[in-house]
Amino acid sequence: MAKSANRYFSLDMEKIVEKEFDPAHALESESIFSLANEHMGVRGYFEEGGGLNTLRGSYLGGVYETQAHMPESDYGGFVRQTHYMVTSADALATRLVIGQETLDLATCAFGNFTRTLDLYTGLLSRSFLWRTRNAGRVEVRFERLLSMKRPELVAQRVTLCALDMDAPTTLTLRVDGNIAHQNTGKCLWEDVSLPAHNSLAQLALRTESTGTTALYTLRTACAGTHESLRAYRTLGETYDFALLRGQEIVAERVVVVQVAHSGEEIPPLPAMPDFDTLLAENTSHWRAFWQTCDVQIEGDPENQQGVRYCLFQLHSTYRGLNPHDNIGAKGLTGEGYNGHAFWDTETYCLPFFLFTDPQAARSLLMYRYHTLAQARERASALDLKGACYPVATLDGTEACTLWQHSSLQMQPSTSVAYAIRIYVETTEDQAFLRHEGAEMLVEIARYVLSRGGWNTEGFGFYGVMGPDEFHMMVNNDFYTNFLGMKALRYAADTLAKLTAEELALITQKTALAAHEPAAWRNAAEHMIVPRRENDVFEQHDGYFRLPHIDAQAIPREEFPLYDHWSYDRIYRTDMLKQPDVLMAMMLYPDDFTTAEKAANYAYYAPRCIHESSLSPSVHSILAAELNKPEEALSFFGFATRLDLDNYNRNTSEGLHLSSVAAAWMTIVEGFGGVRFGEGMLSLAPWLPVGWKRLRFTLCVRETLLHVTVDAQATSLRCEGAPLTVKAYGREITIGAEECRIARQEA
Amino acid sequence: MAKSANRYFSLDMEKIVEKEFDPAHALESESIFSLANEHMGVRGYFEEGGGLNTLRGSYLGGVYETQAHMPESDYGGFVRQTHYMVTSADALATRLVIGQETLDLATCAFGNFTRTLDLYTGLLSRSFLWRTRNAGRVEVRFERLLSMKRPELVAQRVTLCALDMDAPTTLTLRVDGNIAHQNTGKCLWEDVSLPAHNSLAQLALRTESTGTTALYTLRTACAGTHESLRAYRTLGETYDFALLRGQEIVAERVVVVQVAHSGEEIPPLPAMPDFDTLLAENTSHWRAFWQTCDVQIEGDPENQQGVRYCLFQLHSTYRGLNPHDNIGAKGLTGEGYNGHAFWDTETYCLPFFLFTDPQAARSLLMYRYHTLAQARERASALDLKGACYPVATLDGTEACTLWQHSSLQMQPSTSVAYAIRIYVETTEDQAFLRHEGAEMLVEIARYVLSRGGWNTEGFGFYGVMGPDEFHMMVNNDFYTNFLGMKALRYAADTLAKLTAEELALITQKTALAAHEPAAWRNAAEHMIVPRRENDVFEQHDGYFRLPHIDAQAIPREEFPLYDHWSYDRIYRTDMLKQPDVLMAMMLYPDDFTTAEKAANYAYYAPRCIHESSLSPSVHSILAAELNKPEEALSFFGFATRLDLDNYNRNTSEGLHLSSVAAAWMTIVEGFGGVRFGEGMLSLAPWLPVGWKRLRFTLCVRETLLHVTVDAQATSLRCEGAPLTVKAYGREITIGAEECRIARQEA
Repeated sequence: MAKSANRYFSLDMEKIVEKEFDPAHALESESIFSLANEHMGVRGYFEEGGGLNTLRGSYLGGVYETQAHMPESDYGGFVRQTHYMVTSADALATRLVIGQETLDLATCAFGNFTRTLDLYTGLLSRSFLWRTRNAGRVEVRFERLLSMKRPELVAQRVTLCALDMDAPTTLTLRVDGNIAHQNTGKCLWEDVSLPAHNSLAQLALRTESTGTTALYTLRTACAGTHESLRAYRTLGETYDFALLRGQEIVAERVVVVQVAHSGEEIPPLPAMPDFDTLLAENTSHWRAFWQTCDVQIEGDPENQQGVRYCLFQLHSTYRGLNPHDNIGAKGLTGEGYNGHAFWDTETYCLPFFLFTDPQAARSLLMYRYHTLAQARERASALDLKGACYPVATLDGTEACTLWQHSSLQMQPSTSVAYAIRIYVETTEDQAFLRHEGAEMLVEIARYVLSRGGWNTEGFGFYGVMGPDEFHMMVNNDFYTNFLGMKALRYAADTLAKLTAEELALITQKTALAAHEPAAWRNAAEHMIVPRRENDVFEQHDGYFRLPHIDAQAIPREEFPLYDHWSYDRIYRTDMLKQPDVLMAMMLYPDDFTTAEKAANYAYYAPRCIHESSLSPSVHSILAAELNKPEEALSFFGFATRLDLDNYNRNTSEGLHLSSVAAAWMTIVEGFGGVRFGEGMLSLAPWLPVGWKRLRFTLCVRETLLHVTVDAQATSLRCEGAPLTVKAYGREITIGAEECRIARQEA
Repeated sequence: MAKSANRYFSLDMEKIVEKEFDPAHALESESIFSLANEHMGVRGYFEEGGGLNTLRGSYLGGVYETQAHMPESDYGGFVRQTHYMVTSADALATRLVIGQETLDLATCAFGNFTRTLDLYTGLLSRSFLWRTRNAGRVEVRFERLLSMKRPELVAQRVTLCALDMDAPTTLTLRVDGNIAHQNTGKCLWEDVSLPAHNSLAQLALRTESTGTTALYTLRTACAGTHESLRAYRTLGETYDFALLRGQEIVAERVVVVQVAHSGEEIPPLPAMPDFDTLLAENTSHWRAFWQTCDVQIEGDPENQQGVRYCLFQLHSTYRGLNPHDNIGAKGLTGEGYNGHAFWDTETYCLPFFLFTDPQAARSLLMYRYHTLAQARERASALDLKGACYPVATLDGTEACTLWQHSSLQMQPSTSVAYAIRIYVETTEDQAFLRHEGAEMLVEIARYVLSRGGWNTEGFGFYGVMGPDEFHMMVNNDFYTNFLGMKALRYAADTLAKLTAEELALITQKTALAAHEPAAWRNAAEHMIVPRRENDVFEQHDGYFRLPHIDAQAIPREEFPLYDHWSYDRIYRTDMLKQPDVLMAMMLYPDDFTTAEKAANYAYYAPRCIHESSLSPSVHSILAAELNKPEEALSFFGFATRLDLDNYNRNTSEGLHLSSVAAAWMTIVEGFGGVRFGEGMLSLAPWLPVGWKRLRFTLCVRETLLHVTVDAQATSLRCEGAPLTVKAYGREITIGAEECRIARQEA
């Protein structure tokens, strides 16, 4: 089961560097060198295309197509329409011909190749020496960026210098709308450009089923004679010039990509600054980001680079610009998972935003609020009340076509309730709780209540599948029951605290009946807690009686099991995909004693095979809390470098965004011992062997708490209002002056 | 939930009669008037076609097409190719034009309509008085039969008589190969007739994917000038004659339908006797059938007609001519269930054949033997050993595309082991057991062992679905564990009794290892018996803790639940589709005490909603044994008239063959109290209120045992060797002399 690194990129604390291009890594590099700014994303493909392996992927956040789905059988609650993120036009398409030879790194002779992603400017640059057939050596440099300040802007700069002789050159800068969506094999755009658009060097494309328009406005600048080109789904400029020996020629483009969903107007064209201006803006954006969000690991360059790369990609993918967006499982870096956001956004991605960018965290919750109507419809399709949130989605409708997931998993909805609670507790955003939060909680509680059933012992959930997807149609799943109980109770508690006016508004919006909160409380109070043996909670009814297999002895070549085993074989034993009981304990750390955590960790960890890449972080965080540093470190393992070192051997398909978020969580919650409960932040940092110093910053109610951990002590310092925290169990108020706390030995 | 009769046909003890045709019943009548002779089947459609609602279905036993299936996900063990029975050519197509008016009962004026299926001759006749527009009144009679003696032959007779004037008449008798398969909307045959065939009035058709050839040879006889017609997929003769007033004209056809599967040769053309000869042969065939197989119910004409109709259809559909055939869920009467035979052939259909036609019972088992290779492949696809028999099939490969059935249900395989045992116990066919039986049992035991798992309590089956399909992915299902235990033990016991030579042969055929039988026995001995409370066995682990719902209170309009409920909702409560525990008790009556049966019946019956039409018979038989005559009768209910009175409102799609078989079982095992166990037949007949006399005959080891039950006593008489039976618990040897046993009051 042990995964191994496949190291390809150079170790550098502020950059990702690829030296001497290896075509075998072409697709993987494209993923790693992806840029995004939430509005859009572009894989690190070569602008000039050519014969190399490529997934020429550009994506626009929230732009998708729907697709009819014919379920295996025509049963109630089966998903009959799904949707997927589309591949958008390539705004960076470039053709370079020097001395009648077209640039193509699959066939041309070249050397001195370097590709660099600068994590401190967001600039992706690629340079090499092209040994042309007819015009001697030419230095070529491509640079690109997606503007963080102006998310609709993508910019490119091409710098050429002939070293040996003057060279006749043709450079074409195009927006190419003919790119096919790889999964369907089709280009999904229709060219709907109005005649007027042509004169403006604009291209308007429209999706078929959703009627979303993407308007591309292209501005190019280069020396030489030029000619505009316009064809169906294509727009561009061709420049002809002589590349004079030793004299640099610089070409630039800026493309504005504006999106209007069906029924919306395209907004006015924004300003289009030049490349240098955009780069300077990006640089100051990223410097500000690292100021508050950096995690510094001294003494472990691999993890230092890895965690910075994770944070760079996470912030690139999402920062809450648009509350109609969520975080796709592969971000905007590939077609994998159809661009869907999964239910675990709330449990795995939210904490990072909550402690670094609370406004972005709020946006994630507003996404669920804006899709409440879809969740209500879904509950109704399942013969249930209230709102049932989707397992996977872009637009809020359930897009997961496997009924055993979309009909049996309650965690999408209970996770939203969980997320509302941790958001409100950390930020004290009462306004959100009393309006949007309360409305969602009412609908979630209704769903949860209607999905459950009573027996003589109490209330529970039957025929469910918890996060541990290796057990299906189980009853009284620990995670499901526990999070269900929490959701019911939190909904009732929230309503109880509303003013009469607020309650009247919620009542009106949700047609709340007077008896409902008491019914939720009643179900919560009688929630069946699965039986326990020596502090170990049974994952679900009957789990303890399942045949045991030594999950760690399964040969490595049988993974992923979904690809190598008969499907039903996965469900017959006590092997876990991810640990339901431990996940509940991680999410609600104050609800369980250390003895309980220790007993359940000892019991469940050996039974888990981590077929979900999120599972190791749960184990790492709990192992840290349980003072098992070696295990914490071992489970932390490749968390920060999952994609950089291609541990899963599928980075080629795109980055693992939830895993990237989990890496942050593992460091901060695991090594930092950070928890938020009972209205107060607590910390218990420690340093893994080999680490000299760990620094991170948390944003709590507009105060920045700087944490520095070294071998002897933990230092805390606040920017903003003083903050009372619990450090190693002791309450202490932190101000602007650094407070150094000697580390306790446990 | 109560179903109701929709009486349409006249009550008659030897016929099914339809008087005054009602177009609203057109499709239902087509199903009811279906004929079959195992080789082929033809629905009771009007030969002349026309504008009425029709499913112009003719079917050839074992002739099917394969179809690629794209499962919801590409998981291991998911069925990727399925198959379906094709609709074959219409061998009875007829066109009748009198006085330039074409016969079509949708538009023509007619009266005195009668359609009759004679259960004692197998003749289907239809007569009416056609009031033609131009030629006065004409008496029309169509007759048809499928030869029971010569299964490749279908014959038709058309008799015409003009009452008012001479009438110019054109009669066309065709074989029409253009009939579309309704489910796919396509005609599935290619005309591959050789030139030579044309001169012989032959039509050769071939299926695309399976390459099966059906050769139609047509012989017609009629007065008048005639002309042959031949077109793509069509063959026929047209007769022109004057229908002289008062003078009967008789036209006849005989069609031979020969089938050759891919790679087989068409056999030589058989003899083609005339209609009268074929009718006489059929009459003697059916008289002989009723001699031994009749069930007589005096005092209850509805059930008398009903049970005779059931027996007629059951014997028509299957009598073991071809050990490559099985019994489709809708026989050869419609496209429903794609013509598939389901796993319950062994539990519901076999008993009838076992006690009336042991050779046919043997053929049913030989079908499983001939498809052992497919069952081995299926086990392998599921990562299992041995042989896994299919849930639904025509050719032995799994055709059920719902993974939750085809991957989780073990009962197809354990039912084959059960069937081998009851067949061998009843017939003492040791030769079968020691060769084909033993080989199947080895492979079934291997499958069963590899599908199970051990825990600290013993051996059991995990992640299964028993016959009660309202509980999925359950553990230690009572039925599955119990039948698994029986199969393992029976396999080991069977091997233990083989001679060294027989064992050597089986060892060679199955690569049996010496340790295997002991491993089966070990698993059987440690098989987990689900816990019991006050004699009630828990259906599966955790069943007793499921929320209870009052299944009987579900509104009638919500049935079938699969059509009206969210799919997952079906699985959350203690409601049963059919009763696993009671079914096991019915199949193994000697293994449970009366107290156990009573307790489980009392507990499970109210929880069952009988969404399977087979479920009521289980309840009826157990209720009879438990001396609950009213409940036995109530569950018996519509068993014999399910299709005749269209209780399920879907007789239009074809007959319910398993249900038809279950009707016999309910009478003989329920009212007759017939059981076979410990090498001896036992009986405990009783009469439901209103019945004056019940007679039936059982064939046991070449002896016919005639049973007559009246209000006072039960009379037994043997033809053949004397037979020792247990009557009302007392052993008694029955010879040729009638033995009258006064009924005991329980």
